Amino acid sequence: MTLKNYKNRQWLLSSRPKGMVSQKNFDWLESEVQTPKEGEFLVKNLYLSFDPAQRGWMEDKKSYVPPVGLGEVMRASSIAQVIESKNPDFKEGDIIQGIFGWQDFAISDGKGIMNAAHVPADIPITAPLSVFGITGLTAYFGLLDIGKPNAGDTVLVSGAAGATGSIAGQIAKIKGCKVIGTAGGAKKCRWLTEKANFDVAIDYKTADLGSTLQELCPEGINVIFDNVGGEFLNTSLLRIAQNARIVICGAISGYNEEVQPPGPSNYISLIIQRAKMEGFIVLDYANQFKDAVEELSTWVKEGKIVYQEDIAEGLENAPETLLRLYSGKNIGKQLLKVSDPD
Amino acid sequence: MTLKNYKNRQWLLSSRPKGMVSQKNFDWLESEVQTPKEGEFLVKNLYLSFDPAQRGWMEDKKSYVPPVGLGEVMRASSIAQVIESKNPDFKEGDIIQGIFGWQDFAISDGKGIMNAAHVPADIPITAPLSVFGITGLTAYFGLLDIGKPNAGDTVLVSGAAGATGSIAGQIAKIKGCKVIGTAGGAKKCRWLTEKANFDVAIDYKTADLGSTLQELCPEGINVIFDNVGGEFLNTSLLRIAQNARIVICGAISGYNEEVQPPGPSNYISLIIQRAKMEGFIVLDYANQFKDAVEELSTWVKEGKIVYQEDIAEGLENAPETLLRLYSGKNIGKQLLKVSDPD
Repeated sequence: MTLKNYKNRQWLLSSRPKGMVSQKNFDWLESEVQTPKEGEFLVKNLYLSFDPAQRGWMEDKKSYVPPVGLGEVMRASSIAQVIESKNPDFKEGDIIQGIFGWQDFAISDGKGIMNAAHVPADIPITAPLSVFGITGLTAYFGLLDIGKPNAGDTVLVSGAAGATGSIAGQIAKIKGCKVIGTAGGAKKCRWLTEKANFDVAIDYKTADLGSTLQELCPEGINVIFDNVGGEFLNTSLLRIAQNARIVICGAISGYNEEVQPPGPSNYISLIIQRAKMEGFIVLDYANQFKDAVEELSTWVKEGKIVYQEDIAEGLENAPETLLRLYSGKNIGKQLLKVSDPD
Repeated sequence: MTLKNYKNRQWLLSSRPKGMVSQKNFDWLESEVQTPKEGEFLVKNLYLSFDPAQRGWMEDKKSYVPPVGLGEVMRASSIAQVIESKNPDFKEGDIIQGIFGWQDFAISDGKGIMNAAHVPADIPITAPLSVFGITGLTAYFGLLDIGKPNAGDTVLVSGAAGATGSIAGQIAKIKGCKVIGTAGGAKKCRWLTEKANFDVAIDYKTADLGSTLQELCPEGINVIFDNVGGEFLNTSLLRIAQNARIVICGAISGYNEEVQPPGPSNYISLIIQRAKMEGFIVLDYANQFKDAVEELSTWVKEGKIVYQEDIAEGLENAPETLLRLYSGKNIGKQLLKVSDPD
């Protein structure tokens, strides 16, 4: 492609959100497309990934990654294509995965780039951001390594129609568990039971979670895979079985609260039920990603795992696409298409 | 002893407490001393044990033991002496340990009685209720099996001057850890650092816990052994190190709250620090008690573990002795002497 007619459109973080993130936290900038120096290459973004954790990156506090600086391009994973390369390891036309952020073009020296070589060649271009990406891998390691489900266990997944929850639940089914998911709305719930093989889906917008769980899980819940936090976690803690494992994957219900919501007062169930609540960061498993993707892709091919992608379009819509995650509008993995590959 | 001149004085649970437990939740009754039938024996209580968990037993809810019924003798562990026996396994004069409750005399068929045979003979009569009893064993298994301290770790213990916390902290010192305890008041804190070998004691009544921990634990806390819950737990969760283990032993700060206090909103630290929070019930380790007591008694003999007992007197004072636990008046293990052995 000829670049001289292009601008690099960018979304910069302009202020740190208080309460719900909004378009006002970002500035739109059109700048020149940079030229790669020796050892570098230029990519154009094809698809951006949207993840609940992005809200945390916007805050100025210590975490597992440094915060996005004010005036910096908003951080995001993406699938991109190499446009121009002065790095022998990456050649023009390569489709790669990296953290290229909310912009049309980015310069990279190749460090930290997943060249998607571990992803089977015959899969959709977006899959390394969804089922074979961080969200799918988070489900894989969180459920298997932290949740440790046994055949016959009852597994409860919150945010079950989401990119991670839906995969976690299906892996639990593969492992012989009874799987219950919570999601918002009849449409998501139908998908869970009709397509994604969940035994039961609870619509948290209409059901009484406590009494429903009491009825569904007379023997208690062995594994909770929680993406939501808040009332979900607190209520479900009252229904855990002995030696239950509570996988703390996320707590999206609180990410946009100005005042931190109360924690689960029923954590005392951990004592009575000799149970544990454990967090994890999927990046710690990086050296096992390749094997995990292989196993996930086998399950996808066998039809044991289905997944959904919710693809918005146009870089200009990045902020409102992010907001979809926190209002629960997305169905499956939220992506945004920025451009077509050449 | 001749029993015909004696009454069996008893404290019965008369109502379930709302908020702080009080003397009004108990009725005082004087009844006839029962005569053991074939296979049974009669004991007189010598020392009653007081434990924070007793508050939970008074509530009508599902837990690891059934609640004390209304009109039943208040449940408590005790050291007792066999007075009259029609059971060949227990003979007159034997000093035994059981759950004989708040009364002078009790009938037993021997089931569930710890005959204290696993306790070394040369120790004080009360020690099987304190350092070698449930409180010491709770410290032992909670710290070692759940907390898994490594030499060089920083270990934070709440309720550190209590019967369990003080032992947990000293075991952590034996294992080569840096040990910080929190307790209420200068006297308790002095005991921790001057007698019990703690590196630092924080008086939670006067210190700012968050900033003190930040200063004391620049590398973060590896193990939290929590007896207290509430603000202690929430604040300390912000200071955990990667892969920290949070042992949930108790949450005494909330036991007498009418409305359940909020849980730790900072549980999200479990994700960022890949940490876990785990509860346990010491009775699950019953088949390892003998070995644990042996190790504990070695440490006591070597002077590596010191312990305190706070001994009230007179069965009539049982309710107010229980209250001492929840106001933090007790120093070390709270006991109540009911009678002398014959």
